[in-house]
Formats: sequence, structure tokens, C-alpha cells
Amino acid sequence: MTSARRLIDFDSDDDNSVETETRRPGRTRRNRRANEATDYNIPITSTQDVDPAFNHNLRSKEASKYESLDYDVCENVLWRREQTKIKPKFTVRKDFSRWVISLQIGVCTALVACCINIVIEEVSRYKYAFLKRQVDENVLRGDLSIPYLYWAALNLIPVVIGATLVAYVEPVAAGSGIPQVKCYLNGVKVPRIVRIKTLAVKAVGVATSVIGGLAGGKEGPMIHSGAVIAAGISQGKSTTFRRDLKILQHFRDDHEKRDFVVGGAAAGVAAAFGAPIGGILFSLEEAASFWNQSLIWRTFFASIISSFTLNIILSAYHGLSSFRYRGLFNLGEFAPLPFEYYELPIFMLMGVLGGCTGALWNALNSRLNMFRAHAVYQRWAKVLEAAFVAVLGATFACLMAYTINDCRPLGNDPTEHPVQLFCQDNEYNAAAALWFQTPEATVKALFHDPPGSHKILTLAAFVLIYYPLSCITYGLSVSLGIFIPTLLIGAAWGRLVASFTVLAFPTSVAFVSPGKYALIGAAAQLGGVVRMTLSLSVILLETTGNIGFILPIILTLMTAKWSGDYFNEGIYDTQIRTSRVPMLPWHVEPEYQNLSARHIMARPVVCVRLEEKVQYLLDILKNTTHNGFPVVEDGDDGSRVNGRLIGLILRSQLVVILKRSFYQESSRFWESTVSIEAFRDEYPRYPAVEDLHVNDYKSSGEFSVNMHMFMNPSPYSVEEGTSVPRIFQLFRALGLRHLVVVSAENRVRGIITRKDFLKHH
Amino acid sequence: MTSARRLIDFDSDDDNSVETETRRPGRTRRNRRANEATDYNIPITSTQDVDPAFNHNLRSKEASKYESLDYDVCENVLWRREQTKIKPKFTVRKDFSRWVISLQIGVCTALVACCINIVIEEVSRYKYAFLKRQVDENVLRGDLSIPYLYWAALNLIPVVIGATLVAYVEPVAAGSGIPQVKCYLNGVKVPRIVRIKTLAVKAVGVATSVIGGLAGGKEGPMIHSGAVIAAGISQGKSTTFRRDLKILQHFRDDHEKRDFVVGGAAAGVAAAFGAPIGGILFSLEEAASFWNQSLIWRTFFASIISSFTLNIILSAYHGLSSFRYRGLFNLGEFAPLPFEYYELPIFMLMGVLGGCTGALWNALNSRLNMFRAHAVYQRWAKVLEAAFVAVLGATFACLMAYTINDCRPLGNDPTEHPVQLFCQDNEYNAAAALWFQTPEATVKALFHDPPGSHKILTLAAFVLIYYPLSCITYGLSVSLGIFIPTLLIGAAWGRLVASFTVLAFPTSVAFVSPGKYALIGAAAQLGGVVRMTLSLSVILLETTGNIGFILPIILTLMTAKWSGDYFNEGIYDTQIRTSRVPMLPWHVEPEYQNLSARHIMARPVVCVRLEEKVQYLLDILKNTTHNGFPVVEDGDDGSRVNGRLIGLILRSQLVVILKRSFYQESSRFWESTVSIEAFRDEYPRYPAVEDLHVNDYKSSGEFSVNMHMFMNPSPYSVEEGTSVPRIFQLFRALGLRHLVVVSAENRVRGIITRKDFLKHH
Repeated sequence: MTSARRLIDFDSDDDNSVETETRRPGRTRRNRRANEATDYNIPITSTQDVDPAFNHNLRSKEASKYESLDYDVCENVLWRREQTKIKPKFTVRKDFSRWVISLQIGVCTALVACCINIVIEEVSRYKYAFLKRQVDENVLRGDLSIPYLYWAALNLIPVVIGATLVAYVEPVAAGSGIPQVKCYLNGVKVPRIVRIKTLAVKAVGVATSVIGGLAGGKEGPMIHSGAVIAAGISQGKSTTFRRDLKILQHFRDDHEKRDFVVGGAAAGVAAAFGAPIGGILFSLEEAASFWNQSLIWRTFFASIISSFTLNIILSAYHGLSSFRYRGLFNLGEFAPLPFEYYELPIFMLMGVLGGCTGALWNALNSRLNMFRAHAVYQRWAKVLEAAFVAVLGATFACLMAYTINDCRPLGNDPTEHPVQLFCQDNEYNAAAALWFQTPEATVKALFHDPPGSHKILTLAAFVLIYYPLSCITYGLSVSLGIFIPTLLIGAAWGRLVASFTVLAFPTSVAFVSPGKYALIGAAAQLGGVVRMTLSLSVILLETTGNIGFILPIILTLMTAKWSGDYFNEGIYDTQIRTSRVPMLPWHVEPEYQNLSARHIMARPVVCVRLEEKVQYLLDILKNTTHNGFPVVEDGDDGSRVNGRLIGLILRSQLVVILKRSFYQESSRFWESTVSIEAFRDEYPRYPAVEDLHVNDYKSSGEFSVNMHMFMNPSPYSVEEGTSVPRIFQLFRALGLRHLVVVSAENRVRGIITRKDFLKHH
Repeated sequence: MTSARRLIDFDSDDDNSVETETRRPGRTRRNRRANEATDYNIPITSTQDVDPAFNHNLRSKEASKYESLDYDVCENVLWRREQTKIKPKFTVRKDFSRWVISLQIGVCTALVACCINIVIEEVSRYKYAFLKRQVDENVLRGDLSIPYLYWAALNLIPVVIGATLVAYVEPVAAGSGIPQVKCYLNGVKVPRIVRIKTLAVKAVGVATSVIGGLAGGKEGPMIHSGAVIAAGISQGKSTTFRRDLKILQHFRDDHEKRDFVVGGAAAGVAAAFGAPIGGILFSLEEAASFWNQSLIWRTFFASIISSFTLNIILSAYHGLSSFRYRGLFNLGEFAPLPFEYYELPIFMLMGVLGGCTGALWNALNSRLNMFRAHAVYQRWAKVLEAAFVAVLGATFACLMAYTINDCRPLGNDPTEHPVQLFCQDNEYNAAAALWFQTPEATVKALFHDPPGSHKILTLAAFVLIYYPLSCITYGLSVSLGIFIPTLLIGAAWGRLVASFTVLAFPTSVAFVSPGKYALIGAAAQLGGVVRMTLSLSVILLETTGNIGFILPIILTLMTAKWSGDYFNEGIYDTQIRTSRVPMLPWHVEPEYQNLSARHIMARPVVCVRLEEKVQYLLDILKNTTHNGFPVVEDGDDGSRVNGRLIGLILRSQLVVILKRSFYQESSRFWESTVSIEAFRDEYPRYPAVEDLHVNDYKSSGEFSVNMHMFMNPSPYSVEEGTSVPRIFQLFRALGLRHLVVVSAENRVRGIITRKDFLKHH
């Protein structure tokens, strides 16, 4: 293997070339043959029986926005060399630092969550106190337009700030971020999704949107924040700040990074809902096929720490000595909720209702967003749209507060700013109370207000306004989640159901508590919109703290999911589908059930030889968008066609090889200094091939690269006849990016990537 | 492929042989060559450079007790043929029946749990009422030996019945069954573990042991019962009853069966602890690498249904209208347990203590069981031993009750049978109360009794007796779990800690509630013994219904696990290790880190040709214990050595082929009637090769089998140089049983099975 251990040979720029030549006659012969062959053009291999519909090149342009993660570890010579060097002590230290990082992820996620929460709480308090004062002053004068204008302005300003940030600085920070995190856990690299800049925009964006009174919550963005924090902390470097702390280099690959992101997402859920178990189940429901026990435990640890830190900080901030703030989103402890056998069918009916209204919401929202993608694509238009919706919210709120006269005696309602409006003294307007606080506080009020706190008309009007309002809001160029608005809608109609039940059967007033029905309604609506049965059950369970009520919640969620699934997918999956991300489903699509590898594989494959000319490498890097190239031994006819598979090399590796070898001209052979670190240093943003400045005389001459040290020597491969479900299983279970299809003689026939499983790509 | 589509050819027993001959010259030539070759003996391939330490044959004898499950679906021609025939409607129906089966699993698990629970409860009530009467009568006469003898007898009789059943009828029903279920979920077929007979013995065994007052619980066996029920219901047939309902044939493979067993185990946890989420997490912690979303949901469904059914039945049985019995094991709802910051270090110290005592318990227990395996191997000795321990329990209980004079005023204790003994009237003996009920009731008492219900001496004596007693008990030939005794020990010393804390800091009496410390102690002890962090947290959480207390519980469990792991493994893992089950760990052992496939693979490999002589097949089946045979095309020298891999055929398939082809002599070619059903009908207990009655003239002549239809045409294979961690990952992620190692030319070099990853095999 002498020849193979030489990496980059500058044969002609030093005197040793003769020695090199004599030492490696095989290599030279091969090079000469390569020069004679005319296979430099792309596509290189024979194009006979290429099915145009399945041509890799045709498709790669469109889907190239989204690349796969390399969950599979590239066990090349460099890696193995490092493995043999490391001592047991190092393994222990590496494992220990995984735990330390998990701890940091938990703490930092909680810190970010606390900051956002405190800012929102404080500013909102001033906002609504000011508005209340305005209303109280102006209602006496009979002029209600001034508070309306104030309200509109106070909505407008923060929303415009947030929308501008999102639209102009980091568009990927829009929305809840949960679909993107789902994609990442599934193995798709969504560009810029785990950058610190994204986190910053997201944090400011979500604070401004909630302060601006948009129909959204801060919980979804928390999950995304957790993921970004995890990705950032675990890498010990930041591209945004151009800083490399020179630590944690060992975690600089997609595999380790994803494991930490799993923990970060869980920590985000834990911080958002105070639900550490819900957090781990959320990550599990999305990324179940990549788990092992130690990852479960680390993830759990990050969740616990996150929830714990948040609890301490928020409790300290609120000046309480006991732990009461398990999460940002605190529904307040329910007293034990007893339920009767015969209530279960009612809950299930509510589940069906929630499933249907949720499916409708999803359908409307996705239609709207498709329209939006065509009609509102300029940045200023996006900001304008967000501003319009912000004012719309204020308008509806004022309309409802001014027109519905739902007066209740003061003192029964936990709202901070009771507005009197046209009510008697010692009374407050219950319709206005729904709007004069953050959506979260309203959810809490709907859960815990005593029976009869709201008129049926108030609740009905609220549902009718908030349902389309939230539907318009989700998809704006602002950072916002949908948990809270969905819960709010559900809680409102849940209370309505309770009111109607009492109207219909007056005797049932003894046990039909509106809070219970609000909770079931919220669960039903949430289940209908997002369709995550297991983690939602646990999140709601942990948030409400009522373990005896788990059965009704699960029953409701399951019926909601089933009835919703009859119509369409959950909102996150719909979003992912419309954005054409190549996310792998849980099972192969039925159309692919009876196909074989040869039916879906991409052909022809661009292969490289073990020792390959620099010019050829530059050519294929520039002229294709492929990310993996099979390394082959020459085929029967001496060309790369039908070569025997001996390895796989990635685009990123080739780029680093070419960059390193030509930049460091001082050292003659790169192998004397080469280490796996060179590749880790460039991770995750490898230079583009266009940015490589390769001297002409180096790229044209005899210079060649030997792949031996760099290539993955045992890439996964399957025989042509292997069934697609089996291959799919491999992709899901191992998180593959490339799978080489070979003949019975181990000759390369095609290559399969994640996109080949998806019809619409 | 004409030749390949003919399966079994009875060339010489009909006139068509000539036609067959002419149609398939290739086959005949190959047969002739096979006759000429002298490679009929085993081992067939060349034995050059065989490392004796890694010889497959040497090892297979010892480990042959445990086979792997075939989680991988064999996609042979028969299977594909069936796949093309099935309509979308059938897929929907199959999926629907999966849900129906999950429902049935939940209901049946709950039913079995209820039966066991009610029997134990009723009989125990009579037992302790009788003993109390005896004590009350005899204490006046001053003769306490009579109640002691009664007690010993009442312990002895049920325990002897249970031990006899287990020792003579089904030894695999001994213990908790959790280690066996763990192995099954890991992919090891533990013989007879999911049979109905095992379930029957387990159910009767656990009832008798608990009634007999042994230091054990019924929770572990419930999990095993759930697994058996799942395996039974999902198959639509029973070998114990020799009945085949001719339904659900499509679920008759290891893959489907294991998916259902996951659900059954979860349903068992749900029934045992009323913890549906704990159930799913239990299954997850053990089998995380085989999950997908639909399996998660089905498992969750089974758990919920199980918990729900149990709740209804037990609530109805106890004559209550509201749901109160979420599980067999009901710790009783705690009032919200507040805790202070500065208590957390105390909890962590208790975690460390629990970890250490748990590790000691594990060490003692495994030493004892190793001694037992040598010293007590006759069946009668096992029964005698169980009887001895049963009497020992009664002796200690009487000793403690008679000697410790811990009198408390009546009315403060929830015990059903307060014993007065030497106390004043209107008082009862608190030491006796600990023993005069089932262990579960004692746990409940320790959690909920008001402060000062027990003397320090009483608790200390109880811990000192119960700790070794439970250690002796676990490992007897009876069906018993260790959850309850472990909880009991922990709760007792937890209360002790509370008492000492109050003694040391008298001011702390205001908030140091003994119940809280009992719960923490129980968690610490349980964590120290079983080391399942995540699922235990959730189980304890769901059982106590106190969600606000989750942080201390998790903290305690984690410290207990970490400190216990410093000394040894959890009790279940220790048991698995000592019983030499080839369970795959979560990560490859460090010694294997830098090895390649060629270092661990078994050589030489017994291969078969695509078309193979019956005599040869019989030979290899009889003379080897291998379960998978690579199918090869002839190698360079025309022998099977170095043949090119084209498929893999299982022992079970060969046996069925040989059995079917020779029993149905009426039909000339088996392929006219062959279907995948023939293989499913024999599942899971295929006939032994010795039971095949092959006529001499058929096995000696020209008869041959064509594997084409039966073999798996795309077995997973790796190149010789592939690293062991990578191969290990394949095994874990895909649940492989056999992995063929090939050369770069796809020629068979060796084979790897699960045992090759384990040092001690």
C-alpha cells in the first residue's frame, strides 16, 4: 500500500519525481491510460439505457437547495488512524464532554427562553396598562377611536420591526421553525437553519410579534431556538462570528451535531412547556429511527436541566421561593378533574370536531400560503402584509370590545387589566378582557375562569374572529408558533360546548365544568392541527399537571388525529410538502412498493478512480451537483464505466483536498501533515469549487490525487435487484446519504439518494 | 430463468425427465460437477488460515440455546409474488387488523392482570384476617408459637405449589420475566418465552408467591404476561393447544411478532403501574433502534387500552363509580409535594445511597444465583429452597412482631388488620402491621402514614431483615418481580432518613414529611437496582400522580444510576450476562473498536449452490447448527469455495422445503402449489431435521432443490475491510441475524452473526 499512502503528488515540480515514478509504476501506468482515454467529459459513463425520467442530472438542479446530512460516519484511513491513537481516557473524556454540552444546551435554552419571556411579559404589561388607561379615559368622552388608533400603532410598530428583520435579515426565521427542525432531524440540511444569526432574528422576531398582539405564540420558536443553541454549542465555532474556539473538534460532523440537535429540540420543548418528558417524546416522534440508549439519556438530561433552569430563573424573577414556573407556558394547575364514563363519548365527539376544524384550518392555511408565495414575494410586500394583519387584529379586538356588552362583576377574573367600557362600576367587560392580555393569559383564563364568566355570544364571536385571524397570521414573515392560537380557539369552543351542554341538559351543571371542556377543546383543536398524538398528550399532561385526566386527553387527541388524517396531513407536514423538502416518510410510498433498486437509481454515475487527475476532479466538481462519487477500480475496458466499487468520496472531501494541497505549497507532500482535522476545520461550510484557485499548470499537468486516505472504504451498497422497501429501510435506519447500486460482480450500476424515493422530486 | 423457476425436481421418477434434461442442460451439468467434486463433507470450504478461536463451529454448540430473531424480512420470489397480488384494500385491512390486535392485546393484558390481582387480594385478605385472629386469641394465652406455625404453613403451601409448577412444568416462568422480555426485544429468541403455557405457569406462580408472602411483587411478571399475550394474539395459532385459527397468517414472522410484543410489554407496564406513557418508554428504552411512528402509536394505543380496561374492571369490582384504579400498583395519590431548593442535595445524597445499596444488592444477588446454579440444580431442591425461604419470611415476621414493641393508637393507620399483640387496648403494633399485609399495602402505608407512625428501631429492623430476604428471594424458582420489595426497602430507609433529619435538625419538622422521603428513598433504591432512568421516572410519576415532584424524582434516579453504574450493571443486565444470552449492547465493546469484518467473521462458511442436491442439504442440516447458508454461484475452481454471493437461505426454509416436497408425493412439482403460506404455517416452530423422513432413493439420487424461489435474493453483505463498529451499527439498526462478508469481487469470505460481537461467546 505504499502507493496508496501518498496523497497528492506534485510529480513534476521536484526532483524526486523519478523516484516516485519508479516506486509506483502501477500508478503512472494508470495515469497514462487515463490520459489516453477520452472520458473527461460529463457524463462520463455510457449513457445507454438511461431512463430520462430518472436522470440524476435533470433532477439535481431543482432539489439541490436541500442536501442530506451525512449521518453515516466516513471511516476512512484518516479516521481509523485517529481511532487507533485515542486512548480509553479520551473516550471517557469525549463522553463526559457530551454530557457537559447537554448541560450547557439545557441551561442556554432556558436562558434564551427566559429572556424572551420576561421581555414579552414586561412590555405587554405596559402596553395593556396604557391601553386600558386610554380606554378608561376616552370612554367617558365617548370617543373610542383614540384608544383604537393607539392600539393599532402599538401593534404596528413591533410587528413592523419583527417583520423587517425576518424579511430582510433572515427569512428562514419566519414561522414556528418546527417544520425545519423536523426536517433536520429527518436528515435534511435546511440552509441556514441552525445559525446563530437565525437564532437572533428568531428571538427578537418572536418577542416583537407577541408584543405586537399577533395571533401566535412563542413556544414553537423556542423549540427551534433550542435546536440552534445545540448546534452552536456542540461545535465550538461560529461562522456568523467567524470565531473558532478550537475545542470540540471531535463533534464536528453531521452525526454528532444531529444528536445534539435532538437534545436541543427536546430542551426547547421542555423550556416552552415545562414538559421534559414531552420534550423527549417530541424528538422521538420525529426522529425515532436514530436512537440509542445513551442518546435518550442525554436528551432527557438536557430537557430536565432546561426545565429546571427556567424554573429557577423565572421563580427568582417573580420573587417566589418555591418552584412554580416549570415552563414558559403555564396553564396553571388544575384541581383534580373527575370525569364520568358517559362523558367519554362527548370528549370523542369533541375530538372529531377538533379534527375537522383543524383539517379545515390546515387546508385554508396552506391555500393561503400557496397564494402568498406567488403574490407576496417582495420583501417590502411581506412587511406590509404583516403590518396589515397587525392592524386587523387591533381592529377586530376593538370592534368586539366595543360592541359586545358582556359585563361581569369585578374580582372573579384573573385578568390584570379589567376594562370597564360601558359596564357599571364594579363591573368589567368580559369580551374586552379576552383581548386585553397576551394570548397565553387568555388561554389560562378560559381554562380557569369560573362557570359563566363569558356569554355564549362573546365566546362565539371570539372563535369566529380568532380562527381566520390565526389562519392568516401563520405564514406571515414573522417568527411565531401556532400552539397558543390553536389552544385558544379550542379552549374557546370547548367552553362553548360546555355552555350548550348545560343549556340542553340543565341538570348536568353539577359536573360539566367549563374549564374541563376548555381543556378538551384545546386538546382536540391542537390534535386536529398538528397531529402529534404522543408528545402532545404528554405535553398537555405535564402542562396541566393533572395525571388523572390523561385518558380523556389521549382519547380526544387520538380521535382528533384520526378524523383530521381523513382529510389532510398535519400543518407541519403540509408545510414541508409544499416547500418540497425531500423528507423521508416513515414508510415507502405505495407506488414504490414493488420496484427494485434498478428502477429508482440514478444513472449514469460519475465515478472517480483511486488515483485521479486534478483536472478531472475539477471538471466533475464544476459540472455536476453530485455530493458523492463512487471510487472504482477500472472496469473491463479500462475506463471508469462498470468499474468495481472500492469506496466513496464526498464532494466536500474533494474540495478540501484540492484546497489544502494547492494552498500549502511549502510542504511538498500533503500527507506528511494531513489529518482528519483539516476536514473538521472546514465543517460545516465547505468552500465552493468556484472559490478554489488552482494554478493552471498544476491542474493541467500530471498532478493527481490518491483517494485512498480520504474515501470511505466501505460504503453501503446494494445489488440491483434489491427491493425498494428494503433500501428505504436502510436509508431510514442508517441515515444514509448515498447508496451505491452494484451488479453481482460489485460493479457500479447506479446511485440512490434520498430524493429518489420521492415522487414529486 | 426457466431453470430457476423449477423448484424440486423428481427427475427420475417420471417419464418427463428427458424433457427436463434437454430443457436445462446447465443445471444437469452443474449437478454432475457437484457429484464429481468431493466437497460433501463438512466443513466444505477450504480451511486454510482459519483462526481456531473464531471458529464458528466451535462456538455454535455452546450458544445454540439462543437464536436470533429474523427481524429482516426475507424478500424472496414467493414474497414478491404475494406483494404484487395484494391490493391497496388489503394493505388497509392489514393495517387495520394491526390496530385491532393492539386493542385485543390491551384488553387481554388488563384482564389477566385483573384476575391475578383480585385473586391475590381476596386470598390475602382471608389469610391475614385468619392470622390476626390467631394472634389475638393466642396472645392472651401467652402461646405465640401457634400463630407462627399457622403463618409458616400458610406461606409454605402456596409457595410450594408455585415453585413446583415453575420447577417441573415451565422453568422459564421463574423470576420477573423482564430480562427475558428485554432479550426478546433486543432480538434474541429465548426458548419458550412467549408460549401460552409459560403465561399460565407465570400467572398461577405469581399469585401463589405473593399469597405465600414472599418478598416479591406481581409487576414484573405482568410485563412478561403482556408480551406473551401479544405474541399469542398476533399469531392466530397456538402450539400449546395445537390450534390454528387460520387467521392473521400475514403476521407470522419474527418482524411482525416482535412489533406486537413491544406493544404487549408496554401494555403490561401500563396494567401493572397504571402508567401508559411509562409503558411506551419502557419498551423504548429497551428496543429503541426498531421504532417507527406507526409502531409508537400502536404501542401507545395498546398501553392506553390496557390501563383503561384495568381501570374499569377494578373500579367496577370495588364498587366505585369513578375511575380510581389506573394500575395494579397504586401508590395512592400524593397531595402536592412542595420541596425547597436546599432539599435537592439531600435527595441527591439519598440517590447516591440508593445507588450504592442497589449495587450491593445486585452483587449479592448475582453471587447467590451463581452459587445456586451449581448447588441447587435438582428440581426438588429448588422447591425445597423456595419452601425454606417462605418459612424464613414467616419466622422473621413473627420475630419482629413479637419482639419490637412499637405501639401506636388505633385509627391512624390504613392497615386492614391491626394486631394488638402486647399493646394496650386501642393500640396496635406498628411493627406487626408492616408484615400483616401484602408488600404493596406496606409500601402504600410507608408513603402515606402520618409522621411518627413508626419507631426508628422498627424501620431499621425492617430494612435489615427485608434487604437480605428480598435478595435471597429473587432467583428462587418462583414467579416474582423485584419492583415492590425494592420500593419497600427504599421507602423504609427513606422514612428513616426523614426521622434522622428531624432528630438532627428539630426545626426541619415543618417540611420534612416522611412520605416525601419515603418516595425519594424508593426511587433511589429502585434506580440503584434496575437502572432504568427514563421509564422509571415516568412510571413513578404516573403512579404517584404528582407531576410537580418530577424534578426531585429524576434527580434521585439519575444520581442513583450513576453511582450504581460505578460498581456494576443493573440487575436485569447482570442476569442476562450471567445467563450468557447473546444480547447486543448499545455500543460495540471497546476491544472491537478497531477490528474489521475479517477479524470477527466466522470461517469457513457452509454455502449452497443455487441448485443443490438433496443429500448435501440433509448433510449440512444435520452436521451443522448454522441457521443461514449463503447461496453462491460456483467459484473459480468450480466448487462452492469462493463462490459469488447471490442469496441467503435459512435453515428453517430448507427444512420446510424438504418436508413439503417429500410428503406431498401426489403433486409432481411442488412449485405448482407452493406459496409463502407453506412457510408461515410452520412458523415459529419448524420441524427438526431429524424429524424429516426422506426416502433413501430420493435423497441419494439426482434429486435437487432450486433455491431461486426461496432464498433471500438480496442479503445484506459487507466487504471484508469494513470496520466492526459499522457492522455493529447495521446489526442494531436493521435487526440482522446473518451478515455475509464478501471480497471486493462479491465472493463469500465469512459470515457474521450476533454472537461474533460478544467477547464471552
